[in-house]
Amino acid sequence: MTISSLTERDLVARIQSRLPPAPSWLAVGIGDDAAVVEPERNRLDVLTVDASVEGIHFDRRWSPPGAIGHRALAVNLSDLAAMGAAPRSALLSLVLPTALPCDEFDGIIDGIATLAAAHHVHVIGGNLTRSPGPLMLDITAIGTVKRRQTLVRSGAMPGDEIYVTGTIGAAGAGLQMLQQATAPLDAATNPCVQRYLYPVPRVRAGMIVARNRAASACIDLSDGFADGIQRVTTASGVGATIDFTTIPFEPAALAWTDTDAHNPGTSLLTLGDDYELLFTVTPRARRRFLAAARAAGVTVTRVGVCTKERDLQFVNAPAETATFPEGFSHFR
Amino acid sequence: MTISSLTERDLVARIQSRLPPAPSWLAVGIGDDAAVVEPERNRLDVLTVDASVEGIHFDRRWSPPGAIGHRALAVNLSDLAAMGAAPRSALLSLVLPTALPCDEFDGIIDGIATLAAAHHVHVIGGNLTRSPGPLMLDITAIGTVKRRQTLVRSGAMPGDEIYVTGTIGAAGAGLQMLQQATAPLDAATNPCVQRYLYPVPRVRAGMIVARNRAASACIDLSDGFADGIQRVTTASGVGATIDFTTIPFEPAALAWTDTDAHNPGTSLLTLGDDYELLFTVTPRARRRFLAAARAAGVTVTRVGVCTKERDLQFVNAPAETATFPEGFSHFR
Repeated sequence: MTISSLTERDLVARIQSRLPPAPSWLAVGIGDDAAVVEPERNRLDVLTVDASVEGIHFDRRWSPPGAIGHRALAVNLSDLAAMGAAPRSALLSLVLPTALPCDEFDGIIDGIATLAAAHHVHVIGGNLTRSPGPLMLDITAIGTVKRRQTLVRSGAMPGDEIYVTGTIGAAGAGLQMLQQATAPLDAATNPCVQRYLYPVPRVRAGMIVARNRAASACIDLSDGFADGIQRVTTASGVGATIDFTTIPFEPAALAWTDTDAHNPGTSLLTLGDDYELLFTVTPRARRRFLAAARAAGVTVTRVGVCTKERDLQFVNAPAETATFPEGFSHFR
Repeated sequence: MTISSLTERDLVARIQSRLPPAPSWLAVGIGDDAAVVEPERNRLDVLTVDASVEGIHFDRRWSPPGAIGHRALAVNLSDLAAMGAAPRSALLSLVLPTALPCDEFDGIIDGIATLAAAHHVHVIGGNLTRSPGPLMLDITAIGTVKRRQTLVRSGAMPGDEIYVTGTIGAAGAGLQMLQQATAPLDAATNPCVQRYLYPVPRVRAGMIVARNRAASACIDLSDGFADGIQRVTTASGVGATIDFTTIPFEPAALAWTDTDAHNPGTSLLTLGDDYELLFTVTPRARRRFLAAARAAGVTVTRVGVCTKERDLQFVNAPAETATFPEGFSHFR
């Protein structure tokens, strides 16, 4: 059975059946022309939107429905995390091919609802429409943050240390594994596939670092390590020196890419989809930052330092990485 | 030249060059992981999202770029209007085929920016990504309203009078004209084509009626007159009696559809895209409501009354409209 046998009202009811009861701050929820919410006192609103498009960001041949939904929300929660915000609500705009099976629709919604519940995010509204082709999920996520705790990209100063959470390259390698696989891969036993299909937004790390005012700048690594370094240094008007040997490449990703003549880490620098956070930290905030990371239960690794000279340099890099790689472009 | 020759950064710069300076309440705007805004004091936030999909909602063969952009924002402002909200900000999520010519991209953004400026809406952020097929614009619009002034669908009571703004059927007829045209049609001289391509969200009418607490319920007629009546009465737990002869059908739309054996109005009942507002008004608020409509500069027409019996009835209807038409469904 496909969703073409259902009305819009049926589909909305299937979504609502997968959501918890409305919170007290939601004055008007799903089913009216718009959602109405009470702002949180003494907080700023943080808003982001990100589209997940079939054929660009996922492929229904290897992304299970639950992973499609999970990932579409996770990438937005990662943006909120990079601002230090506590996530609160989401709007779902779903553009659906009419041939979509009902159980895949339910699975996508379950993937969204499960991750939303884990982060106390309430789905307050959205929109459903037909697609003439690809399945698209466009999610708006809204969070809150105190003004003086807001993390931005532009706050890094020369001398600030550069840290990343978790490991680099797992998701990009996982995507390549899925693309090249001749038999189904099990996310449960493959950390790279797991990271690509079910990225973990670093919500708690962003919030705790922000509350402790322990970072001078932050960005999420949605488009890869090299891209993140470039964007945060450009926004801050600084350069950076990165010690290649300290970059915490995911071991399984290194093993996967260790099939050509190059240093395996090199090709992982420009792979996206990890959704780790990159922080810059003034030396005097270092202990506070490391304590915040411990409290958040996340590993952080120091990979370099911000410089007054505005260029990007590697030290201890293999010969082919002497120049810093170009960042990711969605269009060119 | 197509957008494939540009980077994401270039495209963002082209958007920013078309926007006014950031307002004081915008703490972090375009260019970070998310937007950060200061909530308006003593107001609730009103949030809505709506997708405009090529091949479903518009066709690039007959929708000029400016109309594509205008319409994608207008449908969202109409949702805010139906809640009585003052629009404030918007997030643009654009899913773009790489073959999109740069001047069409600029035209779409101009269409959005012009309508946004007219309603004091600031574009605070968004997302750009590639499309494997159709052009898609998904816009999140955010406004504010006082709690006790919020308009909802569920407030109508038996005895309340039913009013609609403007005229009915223009946009639906305009779409048919465009679909069937063998030569280009001029929006400037064709009110139906004009309404389909450049719908006017009734923002001021929604706000003034809400401020005067002059309506018991409101909905926008995005999916047609019949659909709006059905939704507002269902949400309110009432029925309605509609006097067919009082429905303010657009004269040019009546003339266009007057080519078959049916009463020309009948086929206009289920055509969407007009984005007029439908209000229910208690008899004692009638004078206040009519004064609010005058102040907003919008024509309103009384078309019927809410009833205790939960069915929908026409009076003075042509024979073929004896039963109330089914509402619009996006999927079935």
